[in-house]
Amino acid sequence: MLKKIPQSLSPELVKVLMEMGHSDEIVIGDGNFPGASHADNLVRCDGLMIPELLESILELLPLDTYTECPVTLMEVVKGDSYKPEIWDTYKEILINSGEENTKIEQLERFAFYERSKKAYAIVTTSEKSLYANIILKKGVIS
Amino acid sequence: MLKKIPQSLSPELVKVLMEMGHSDEIVIGDGNFPGASHADNLVRCDGLMIPELLESILELLPLDTYTECPVTLMEVVKGDSYKPEIWDTYKEILINSGEENTKIEQLERFAFYERSKKAYAIVTTSEKSLYANIILKKGVIS
Amino acid sequence: MLKKIPQSLSPELVKVLMEMGHSDEIVIGDGNFPGASHADNLVRCDGLMIPELLESILELLPLDTYTECPVTLMEVVKGDSYKPEIWDTYKEILINSGEENTKIEQLERFAFYERSKKAYAIVTTSEKSLYANIILKKGVIS
Amino acid sequence: MLKKIPQSLSPELVKVLMEMGHSDEIVIGDGNFPGASHADNLVRCDGLMIPELLESILELLPLDTYTECPVTLMEVVKGDSYKPEIWDTYKEILINSGEENTKIEQLERFAFYERSKKAYAIVTTSEKSLYANIILKKGVIS
Amino acid sequence: MLKKIPQSLSPELVKVLMEMGHSDEIVIGDGNFPGASHADNLVRCDGLMIPELLESILELLPLDTYTECPVTLMEVVKGDSYKPEIWDTYKEILINSGEENTKIEQLERFAFYERSKKAYAIVTTSEKSLYANIILKKGVIS
Amino acid sequence: MLKKIPQSLSPELVKVLMEMGHSDEIVIGDGNFPGASHADNLVRCDGLMIPELLESILELLPLDTYTECPVTLMEVVKGDSYKPEIWDTYKEILINSGEENTKIEQLERFAFYERSKKAYAIVTTSEKSLYANIILKKGVIS
Amino acid sequence: MLKKIPQSLSPELVKVLMEMGHSDEIVIGDGNFPGASHADNLVRCDGLMIPELLESILELLPLDTYTECPVTLMEVVKGDSYKPEIWDTYKEILINSGEENTKIEQLERFAFYERSKKAYAIVTTSEKSLYANIILKKGVIS
Amino acid sequence: MLKKIPQSLSPELVKVLMEMGHSDEIVIGDGNFPGASHADNLVRCDGLMIPELLESILELLPLDTYTECPVTLMEVVKGDSYKPEIWDTYKEILINSGEENTKIEQLERFAFYERSKKAYAIVTTSEKSLYANIILKKGVIS
Amino acid sequence: MLKKIPQSLSPELVKVLMEMGHSDEIVIGDGNFPGASHADNLVRCDGLMIPELLESILELLPLDTYTECPVTLMEVVKGDSYKPEIWDTYKEILINSGEENTKIEQLERFAFYERSKKAYAIVTTSEKSLYANIILKKGVIS
Amino acid sequence: MLKKIPQSLSPELVKVLMEMGHSDEIVIGDGNFPGASHADNLVRCDGLMIPELLESILELLPLDTYTECPVTLMEVVKGDSYKPEIWDTYKEILINSGEENTKIEQLERFAFYERSKKAYAIVTTSEKSLYANIILKKGVIS
Repeated sequence: MLKKIPQSLSPELVKVLMEMGHSDEIVIGDGNFPGASHADNLVRCDGLMIPELLESILELLPLDTYTECPVTLMEVVKGDSYKPEIWDTYKEILINSGEENTKIEQLERFAFYERSKKAYAIVTTSEKSLYANIILKKGVIS
Repeated sequence: MLKKIPQSLSPELVKVLMEMGHSDEIVIGDGNFPGASHADNLVRCDGLMIPELLESILELLPLDTYTECPVTLMEVVKGDSYKPEIWDTYKEILINSGEENTKIEQLERFAFYERSKKAYAIVTTSEKSLYANIILKKGVIS
Repeated sequence: MLKKIPQSLSPELVKVLMEMGHSDEIVIGDGNFPGASHADNLVRCDGLMIPELLESILELLPLDTYTECPVTLMEVVKGDSYKPEIWDTYKEILINSGEENTKIEQLERFAFYERSKKAYAIVTTSEKSLYANIILKKGVIS
Repeated sequence: MLKKIPQSLSPELVKVLMEMGHSDEIVIGDGNFPGASHADNLVRCDGLMIPELLESILELLPLDTYTECPVTLMEVVKGDSYKPEIWDTYKEILINSGEENTKIEQLERFAFYERSKKAYAIVTTSEKSLYANIILKKGVIS
Repeated sequence: MLKKIPQSLSPELVKVLMEMGHSDEIVIGDGNFPGASHADNLVRCDGLMIPELLESILELLPLDTYTECPVTLMEVVKGDSYKPEIWDTYKEILINSGEENTKIEQLERFAFYERSKKAYAIVTTSEKSLYANIILKKGVIS
Repeated sequence: MLKKIPQSLSPELVKVLMEMGHSDEIVIGDGNFPGASHADNLVRCDGLMIPELLESILELLPLDTYTECPVTLMEVVKGDSYKPEIWDTYKEILINSGEENTKIEQLERFAFYERSKKAYAIVTTSEKSLYANIILKKGVIS
Repeated sequence: MLKKIPQSLSPELVKVLMEMGHSDEIVIGDGNFPGASHADNLVRCDGLMIPELLESILELLPLDTYTECPVTLMEVVKGDSYKPEIWDTYKEILINSGEENTKIEQLERFAFYERSKKAYAIVTTSEKSLYANIILKKGVIS
Repeated sequence: MLKKIPQSLSPELVKVLMEMGHSDEIVIGDGNFPGASHADNLVRCDGLMIPELLESILELLPLDTYTECPVTLMEVVKGDSYKPEIWDTYKEILINSGEENTKIEQLERFAFYERSKKAYAIVTTSEKSLYANIILKKGVIS
Repeated sequence: MLKKIPQSLSPELVKVLMEMGHSDEIVIGDGNFPGASHADNLVRCDGLMIPELLESILELLPLDTYTECPVTLMEVVKGDSYKPEIWDTYKEILINSGEENTKIEQLERFAFYERSKKAYAIVTTSEKSLYANIILKKGVIS
Repeated sequence: MLKKIPQSLSPELVKVLMEMGHSDEIVIGDGNFPGASHADNLVRCDGLMIPELLESILELLPLDTYTECPVTLMEVVKGDSYKPEIWDTYKEILINSGEENTKIEQLERFAFYERSKKAYAIVTTSEKSLYANIILKKGVIS
């Protein structure tokens, strides 16, 4: 544990966040996300929920302002009437992060998987909410 | 995630628990425990607290009945009047674990460190309570 | 050995099952299955038979309910009148597993091999029954 | 699987048996044996019992004729009246192995552990019988 | 060295033969065969000749009965009147192996190289006879 | 680069600082310090000077309050009248760090080398001032 | 540190520069450059600025005289009126390097990224100026 | 150093030459050749010149007699009037090698690079002559 | 295979012989020699006999002339009347090797094992003669 | 190859020289020196002679001025009247190196070997002169 660094972030995860550069992406997956089969860099955070982790990550990670939407969620499957309440939590965390650009886009499930394969890293959690997976695109420190 | 296995346990931690045999020991250290410099096998659980983790581990791990005390705590330093309340939580968890032998011994701080070096694995957490480090000795499945 | 975890499952196999996410697949091959040449992750279980192993795996692994058939068998080659009796054993094990969706599809031999290459892991056994290879698609824990 | 080689022996175990030379030792431990913490070479055989494995190993491995006792068992702890029935099974297997020298010595528990650390390899099983651990000293092929 | 296993087979080679499954192939190349540049798994047997090695391998390895020809030789280049006498030795060894199907096909030189790249393993020897390279397809143990 | 983390710290160095626990030590050596031959974990910071790096590290790293002196300098060799002015800079940085305990002890040159070998990590720089090497003992985050 | 070699160059960076041959390229990226996701060989120089590093590198590295422009900059995005003042610094460093050919070409941003992926190495710095990324093509020593 | 083996050949280089089989190729590059970026197996011979090395290699390596030209040089670029005098040295070394087939072909510069990528190994030297790069195709020992 | 190098020597063995320096030792063990448990560098030559291998090795390896006896054999155990005829073969090979100093000493069995542990490498063969193990001490090439 | 760096020094050797710090030692051994069995870091320079290499190394490496003798030679064995002429060459190279302290001490043969084991690196060459081995102690760059 260090001063200034949120305590739920592991040394490995902070290292990965630091290694990322402008426009690299990180996926935060829920407890059922197939991380091991899709990731180049896999960081497991078993026992953690996404909202707490997202808030901790955004204390350190700047979001991209050179792109329309630096945040991506997995679109609710067509015909499914489910409303992911966790998205409201995410929006509040994003607004409170102090980041300039927190616009969100949605991506169809299989397109989301394909994009995850190209991400710099995938973080898996024990989150149980449905449609909780989220991708963040890193911005610049100036 | 799997059926029957507590969700805060990582694949790596379950693997380590399975690899341990009769009388091998595992240390669960708090957020300031020097795990990386003392462990042969280090399993980081950043973001988790010890009581939850201890409870999860005891759902799987049998405690040794061939030894006097299969549980070891770090003794309060002489002259220190601090009373570690977290020990009461531990006792309750141990009692509720259904294990036959849950006797606890205490070990002086530096002896505790030396014994940690010989443990099969050290797990580090983000636990902040003082004197929260704990060693478990594995028993047999019959 | 741990409480709750079937004793014929190795630490490595349990770790692999835990690492798998929603829709990842695992192949359980018989004693002649070309596992080493087809697997990304190979887990050998020499000396074990498939029914016992399948039963143990299903104690932990949930089957996918988002797909038509989460279980796949290798189709009997056209013109071959052989009736794989082991399939009846599999069906009984699947029904007793308590899983919600245990529907089975069949796949032509070479298509089965191709799909095995994409599985997250292949487990090989010493099973001698013909047409005993089986693929399981992992479901979600909610 | 190959002709002539017992099917419960894994490729890794046969390789280890072949690598051993005159007077190298192999430990076959029960399901609670602390193999991972004591072995240089660890071969896990989860799900297998010792009698079957011992029989298979002795189909390939010659026992040492240059030593008094090429077979070592863990001595029953003093004061314990337990009689390990599995030893009778072992004796029968040893006699049926066709080996010239199958004399057995017993070794006190902690001395047994120390000797295990020096063995070329340790094999762990799911054997549940008490006092079932056994050490074999390899002989020569002439 | 072990009982039952031919003494010219190395632990590594036996392990490779055991890892192979139904329809996996192994190439036995002569002393000039470009093994290191074509093999996924390379097993060097410097100092050995192919007939002795082939005989030893066939003591353990079953040939495929589900294919027309489980044995493949490198075709004599068109226009070359050389008659590879070593093939007669191979035929005798194949017949004496007790294998059910020992039919041989021939493959043009460059097609032979391409197929070698896909084999599970390549064994290189010090064999000097021309056209001595041979591919074996593994069958099943039932 | 991340928010809150000083930009001269590499991902590897931050990871090392995070991995350290209570009472683990880190050495910051000058440009001639024999780091590669003394370190378990070596982190090179070629091109950086110690004052800037020390200031950055102390933004994150807490100093030990359970020890008399958490900071150690290399004692000026007896008979040498040199006065290391850089020590004044260090003292100022330590005072401005906000740390509770910044007491400094001095250690004879060869004792300093021996202690460096036991440190969790050594950081090397391009610092040219004499007697600029410094050891920090990590404290706790509460 | 060695005689003749600029002190801000790490052993790893000098090794990389030496390994490069005629026409191999090296990218020097700013603090936000996505080096870890684009590089085959990544050399981190956290805490350093590009001008100092460029000057040090050019003390050792010859530029290619067989190509039109051995230096490549990232073109200002169309519509952006920003004028990268750091380019003037680069030009001065290039002129003072004594190299025969220091001609500069510009490359559109995404083409620059693609070319970076093919470079022999990427060096990342803490440079904050915009459009500061630069590619050098190595020439010959005759 | 061994009897019979030229003393400028390193253990690694001799091992590579031995591993090569019929028709595998080895590139000997000059001091500016981009070996590290083009080689699967790179053997550095810094400080050596090509003629001495070529002579040493040809004491051991047979040239291919099944191909038109087992030796390849890099063609002088069109329009360049340079005459590579080192080629005369090479021809003399080739003639004195006692090899049956020492015919030489020339290959255009970029085709030469492409072919180098497919070679079994690339050796780099400190040779300074222009157009000194050379490829050898290995023949058979009968 | 290469010119001048005996064909039963593998690339790995020749590399080891080249790496050895003045007074380094190599053990050539018989088929029952416990090589894997005693060697730092183990080179297996399954299928080869020692006389042929010894002759091949001595074509390359010089014996030490700075020591009394550069060749060591394992002494016949006291009380054993066996006369190792293979020693006569060794003596003839040694004499024919052209080496200046081929004096032989004998070493008691367990002292022989201890010395083997300190050798640079151990070569194992399929030799079946008793007391066939031999140690060679490398001399200098001048 | 780079500007300023002598061309007979490999990237690996320059890296090692840079990694060394004050008082670390490097051994330059002749062609018969047992480098592989004595070195932590071994750098082979087959084909090079020591004088040329020594001169190149001293262009970069400063010698220690804090020790009596930063250069160590292997003492002529007692009773041997040989006079190592190469030492005169070394002295000339040392004087011409511009180093402030080039005093030489001699060390008895076996003490020399023991000290070599503690050196940071050993470089082996093809030097044939007797008593040509030399140890250099690195000084500081100020």
